[in-house]
Amino acid sequence: MQFLEALDAALPEGRLVLDPGVVAAYSRDQAAWAPQGKALALVRPEDAEQVRRVVALCAEHRVPVVPRGAGTGLSGGANAVDGCVLLALDGMDRVLEIDADEQLAVVQPGVVNDHLRAAAAGHGLWYPPDPASSPWSTIGGNAATNAGGVCCVKYGVTRDYVLGLQVVTAAGDLVRVGRRTRKGVAGYDLAGLFVGSEGTLGVITEITVRLLRLPDSPPKTIVGAFGSLVDAGRAVAAAAASGLTPSALELVDRYCLQAVDDWKNMGLADLGDVLLLGRVDTGDEQEAGALQACFDEAGAVFSTRSTDAEEAEALFAARRLAYPALERLGPVLTEDVCVPRGLVPEMLSRIEGHARTHGVHIANIAHAGDGNLHPLIVVPAGDDGARARAQSAFEAILDDAIALGGTVTGEHGVGLLKKRGMHAELGEGVLALHRAIKSALDPAGILNPGKIL
Amino acid sequence: MQFLEALDAALPEGRLVLDPGVVAAYSRDQAAWAPQGKALALVRPEDAEQVRRVVALCAEHRVPVVPRGAGTGLSGGANAVDGCVLLALDGMDRVLEIDADEQLAVVQPGVVNDHLRAAAAGHGLWYPPDPASSPWSTIGGNAATNAGGVCCVKYGVTRDYVLGLQVVTAAGDLVRVGRRTRKGVAGYDLAGLFVGSEGTLGVITEITVRLLRLPDSPPKTIVGAFGSLVDAGRAVAAAAASGLTPSALELVDRYCLQAVDDWKNMGLADLGDVLLLGRVDTGDEQEAGALQACFDEAGAVFSTRSTDAEEAEALFAARRLAYPALERLGPVLTEDVCVPRGLVPEMLSRIEGHARTHGVHIANIAHAGDGNLHPLIVVPAGDDGARARAQSAFEAILDDAIALGGTVTGEHGVGLLKKRGMHAELGEGVLALHRAIKSALDPAGILNPGKIL
Repeated sequence: MQFLEALDAALPEGRLVLDPGVVAAYSRDQAAWAPQGKALALVRPEDAEQVRRVVALCAEHRVPVVPRGAGTGLSGGANAVDGCVLLALDGMDRVLEIDADEQLAVVQPGVVNDHLRAAAAGHGLWYPPDPASSPWSTIGGNAATNAGGVCCVKYGVTRDYVLGLQVVTAAGDLVRVGRRTRKGVAGYDLAGLFVGSEGTLGVITEITVRLLRLPDSPPKTIVGAFGSLVDAGRAVAAAAASGLTPSALELVDRYCLQAVDDWKNMGLADLGDVLLLGRVDTGDEQEAGALQACFDEAGAVFSTRSTDAEEAEALFAARRLAYPALERLGPVLTEDVCVPRGLVPEMLSRIEGHARTHGVHIANIAHAGDGNLHPLIVVPAGDDGARARAQSAFEAILDDAIALGGTVTGEHGVGLLKKRGMHAELGEGVLALHRAIKSALDPAGILNPGKIL
Repeated sequence: MQFLEALDAALPEGRLVLDPGVVAAYSRDQAAWAPQGKALALVRPEDAEQVRRVVALCAEHRVPVVPRGAGTGLSGGANAVDGCVLLALDGMDRVLEIDADEQLAVVQPGVVNDHLRAAAAGHGLWYPPDPASSPWSTIGGNAATNAGGVCCVKYGVTRDYVLGLQVVTAAGDLVRVGRRTRKGVAGYDLAGLFVGSEGTLGVITEITVRLLRLPDSPPKTIVGAFGSLVDAGRAVAAAAASGLTPSALELVDRYCLQAVDDWKNMGLADLGDVLLLGRVDTGDEQEAGALQACFDEAGAVFSTRSTDAEEAEALFAARRLAYPALERLGPVLTEDVCVPRGLVPEMLSRIEGHARTHGVHIANIAHAGDGNLHPLIVVPAGDDGARARAQSAFEAILDDAIALGGTVTGEHGVGLLKKRGMHAELGEGVLALHRAIKSALDPAGILNPGKIL
């Protein structure tokens, strides 16, 4: 086949992979429910020029390109489409530069989030965005999805840290957008546009990110246990209304605690039905006390605060383990709705209602301080009836988030799973703007086709 | 004329203005050197629906639309083009909502920056972006130009606070982009794209902004006087390298101090040749001391720190007065380059060099902590030779900023004055992306034509 021969000739030995087992392993992300197509080939370029050549060839031959990092996405955004080239950037994993004076780093897209954080820490600096996938997910994937995380409640999301990008366009050009300076308004915010576009507008081959100084004071952890989801939600709303700015405010419910206990035997479910994990990093004892007071006044059955790093780490580790613990029980359909913080109790109450009316198990973890909730619908493997009910509950929760003035996706992206929901959220006029931009930057429609739009 | 009759019929009594004196007064911004065309008419709509009708009629009749707020821009972005309708949004000046629990405000585009700040303060909240024009400039104009300001060195620029927008598209549709929630990744970042697009992609009719809590502690002001621009620049580089995060770090040179003294008789020039004004708002005495130490070690001839609000306000007022004080001396050609912070001394030295070689007076004010410098080239009115030399110096400074890895515009925008510089900065590949997006969102090219691109 002429195209594959040209692709092979354009890349160094071993960078074009046709082995069906390997191609299959690269053909999907972690969204167990999202469909996947059959890829034509996998390429694993070593540098931006090789990426450029791949995209240029795909453009010439009208072959779809599906870029991917570590494949930890939860919306199917990196899933293969039929006849595509899977463009895996995980091998481009070098931290190219850390400029401590200018507080920035330049990295290849395959650099793992935690690796960047460790490299920055060596200079007394900090890269804040910390998705739960941080031990595995890549900065390129984080940028493509505008990933969030635990500390985003105070420090913002990936887009807030991306200064500039090197991008391969759909035409096969290698360009630089954005900047290295602290400010800059020369032209449109193309860097911001590529961030979160899930590989549909260009392929990110290098990322320049802003770094902060490592916080001085060790964080304080505030734990509250609640008798119900809605009580915990009321504590979140109270913390928001009080104007506190915790650096984390996470919610984990009994279903998740039990799943982690069953796997890791941590005894978490003994603490209560719903846990809130708060963190304050200002060194301000008063702020930690005020957050605990919000927990207590909302009806916490138990609360405590601690500066014991080990104890705190164990609790936050449990929160990170919740998702893989649930995956052990069956395919997980992951929601990512985000609502105004004051409406967290209302949204949690509606989620409980949907679990009842649709007859499905819904576990809840949440970046509660952001109003970003992750109801996780767990279905026994092979139960087709439950699967259909889960699908209905999923869409009903999206519609409720929209009805409450929220969004169908706070940080995971649209991918394949939230296309219907996004269309309902944005409406026809805004979708028309999306299509116009997509056509302008990718007229042949080769970049991750069928995702988002 | 059919078009004007249709426009008149579409608007309430008095909202279409044809009086040549009034139209002329709305035909330019504060960029004294930027060309202006002859407008056909001025409209002053009262609401988004009237804006929509105006843009739809202009689209139908292929008439250019130049949107504007208070006209305080410094790049000619709001200047009339021949045959245009000037779309003045200054009359749409209501704060529609302040939601204290969600920490956000919804405003019409004509709300003056300081008025939003005052309204937020009534709820214990704070809208940080504070361009020097804050007593006059509007949030709509701030969003259209992604305006910066004094506190941006710590708190970021306008785009960092815009959550959502209501926009009239070039097709005459009224749409909402962005969100009200803390996070959201449903689709492309269209709100971020419209911010800073200087009215070339759509007309902003409503803005939802994120608010912070008012800082608890009164700020401390740190003043340093230096014998030379380069010494002051070294203090800025030292502060950056030390990892300090002042909430302001402003530079004012003798030329500006003298101009303010001549106008307001403040005795500022007695303090030194170049002043650095720092502000620390953490309540941390150590941080204020560390910033003063940076000043001293870089060779300050005098330094002091103070919590006297009145004294501090007088110094920052002098900084705000520098621009109007210089305008009294002749037409001012305003630069807005931004370079890596560590290269501030080098850039200041090159600016001094250009003043000598081009034989022009260049005054300097700067958001120095950001690396955002405002060399102000002042020319005696009517001196055509000096005017030509100023123009050469202006372009040479832009090229130096690019050569140092910086940008031709940190916060003022491209407008008309920086088109050559922006093209040199971005290069043909990135310009092609700009043109593609402009054509996609404004195929007939009616929105602020000739600006940016």
